Amino acid sequence: MSWYAPIVKEMKLVEAEIRSAVASDQETLTDICMHVIGAGGKRIRPGIAILAYKAVGGDSGPNIIGIAAAFELIHSATLIHDDINDIGETRRGRVAAYKKYGVQKALIAGDFLFVRSFRLGGYWNKESVETISNACTATAESEMLQSHYDFDPSTPENVYIAVITGKTARPIEAAARVGAYLGGATKEQVEALGAYGVNLGIAFQIIDDILDLDGTEKELGKTSGTDLTDGKATLPLQIAMADPKLGPSIAGVFRKKDKTRAEVEEALALALKTNAVERSRAKAREYAERAIATLAPLPSSPYKNALIELAEVVVSRRA
Amino acid sequence: MSWYAPIVKEMKLVEAEIRSAVASDQETLTDICMHVIGAGGKRIRPGIAILAYKAVGGDSGPNIIGIAAAFELIHSATLIHDDINDIGETRRGRVAAYKKYGVQKALIAGDFLFVRSFRLGGYWNKESVETISNACTATAESEMLQSHYDFDPSTPENVYIAVITGKTARPIEAAARVGAYLGGATKEQVEALGAYGVNLGIAFQIIDDILDLDGTEKELGKTSGTDLTDGKATLPLQIAMADPKLGPSIAGVFRKKDKTRAEVEEALALALKTNAVERSRAKAREYAERAIATLAPLPSSPYKNALIELAEVVVSRRA
Repeated sequence: MSWYAPIVKEMKLVEAEIRSAVASDQETLTDICMHVIGAGGKRIRPGIAILAYKAVGGDSGPNIIGIAAAFELIHSATLIHDDINDIGETRRGRVAAYKKYGVQKALIAGDFLFVRSFRLGGYWNKESVETISNACTATAESEMLQSHYDFDPSTPENVYIAVITGKTARPIEAAARVGAYLGGATKEQVEALGAYGVNLGIAFQIIDDILDLDGTEKELGKTSGTDLTDGKATLPLQIAMADPKLGPSIAGVFRKKDKTRAEVEEALALALKTNAVERSRAKAREYAERAIATLAPLPSSPYKNALIELAEVVVSRRA
Repeated sequence: MSWYAPIVKEMKLVEAEIRSAVASDQETLTDICMHVIGAGGKRIRPGIAILAYKAVGGDSGPNIIGIAAAFELIHSATLIHDDINDIGETRRGRVAAYKKYGVQKALIAGDFLFVRSFRLGGYWNKESVETISNACTATAESEMLQSHYDFDPSTPENVYIAVITGKTARPIEAAARVGAYLGGATKEQVEALGAYGVNLGIAFQIIDDILDLDGTEKELGKTSGTDLTDGKATLPLQIAMADPKLGPSIAGVFRKKDKTRAEVEEALALALKTNAVERSRAKAREYAERAIATLAPLPSSPYKNALIELAEVVVSRRA
């Protein structure tokens, strides 16, 4: 069963809302947005917003579809801007937007998506706006935090967790919280779903970072080895670089600002000989289990089951 | 008299609000924002929001200061991102943020400012959010429109007017409209102040584009000749390039993607020998006069006088 089976109808409405939000007389703008949005993506943020809404009994009132779509637009905006920053070559199986359209247009398209998302998500109420805005702030802050540790093989694990919490877990938390809030959740349920979002987000990002190490470009739909290339000390790379035997060689490559693709692949091969992937997967599973445990205060429902299913999918995925 | 004399107190509160909005544990983020915001700037957008609010009798209720600050934050975000795109060397007398901090951090800081402005401006009501969001959309769309005409000496005047309306006039219009709306304006007053904002914005941008041609870097606080260098056919450049005698040489330089500073300065000197500056100033004055005329439906007040004064300052400024 697909995790979003109980909300297939709503997810179709979200897609329509997203497409309508990026419509523009400037077709290039729409093209760039759809280049990223139309390439698929897991739609985890809108899915969680709707599941949280439904899981607490939401069934009418404010436009949850619009808010759910806003989360995907914000996510897509950060993908477009991130690719400019990370010099990623491909994204969701397509050449990165900035590579196809140029940095200038990609930058404008990212701003456009931010602005369109505000319009969808902006005017419901103070709580929603603050939750979304604080999550976006956390994203920017965590990117800045991360940049201070670029090419530093001894980046501590708690910095890594802080970075991925800001950039991935907080937006997912915001989707869960806002969905719950709009669905009329109790304060306890909002907190529970928020905690679900944080833990799921951390698990999701650890898996993402593992896949960057051991996935193939074909599986991922994006360039692999980018963290090593860009000097981002993800959890699996931290563990690999701490390996008493193989770590120093991997760290030697990691530290270099100009490294060849051959060096990167050699270092990736060494990293795969350590227990980095195994230990990182165990850590991701811990967070996913914590996410599932936080759902206890929710009544049984297909939506709660879907949230549980999603946590399982997230840690077993290969792309 | 300074145009903002009647709202000195409110403008101080706006400054405090701006500073508090950009506070962050990630000090680099705050530094980059303040590098741009703290360098001065005319604060026209927040000033107009407050003057519009006061001119229609607004004196309490929703937080006009926060909204006014939001307009300046959005403006600063676009300045930071624009500089990355335009490869501007200096801004407000300082080296451009991306030059000092790198493209990556400047990009993040711009996003951060967008997000913080959303928090300040986002939750008042549907009308304000839509007005602000539509203005930001127009900005992105007009930048895209402009990019289609890069290095094209025969860019038509109506494209130029459409571009500057989107990038400069619509945000100023939005500030005037939202200020009026929150101040309890009648529908007619909202329209009048909106029209004031559009016309003032166009006048402002034409003067800006003249200064890029005939101003010195010392006066401007930013690099001059950037439009010619970047191949942006502003009104004065359009007029200069249409000059029967000197135009073709100017257009020859304009069209080149790789031009030397010496070529740029030679072409600027030729442009100053045409009537481009004079005719562009006349056009700016037309728009400023139209802006002043739109204020007729407003009752007399120091705030209305200040809006008139501002329209005069805008077309007579040298920086």
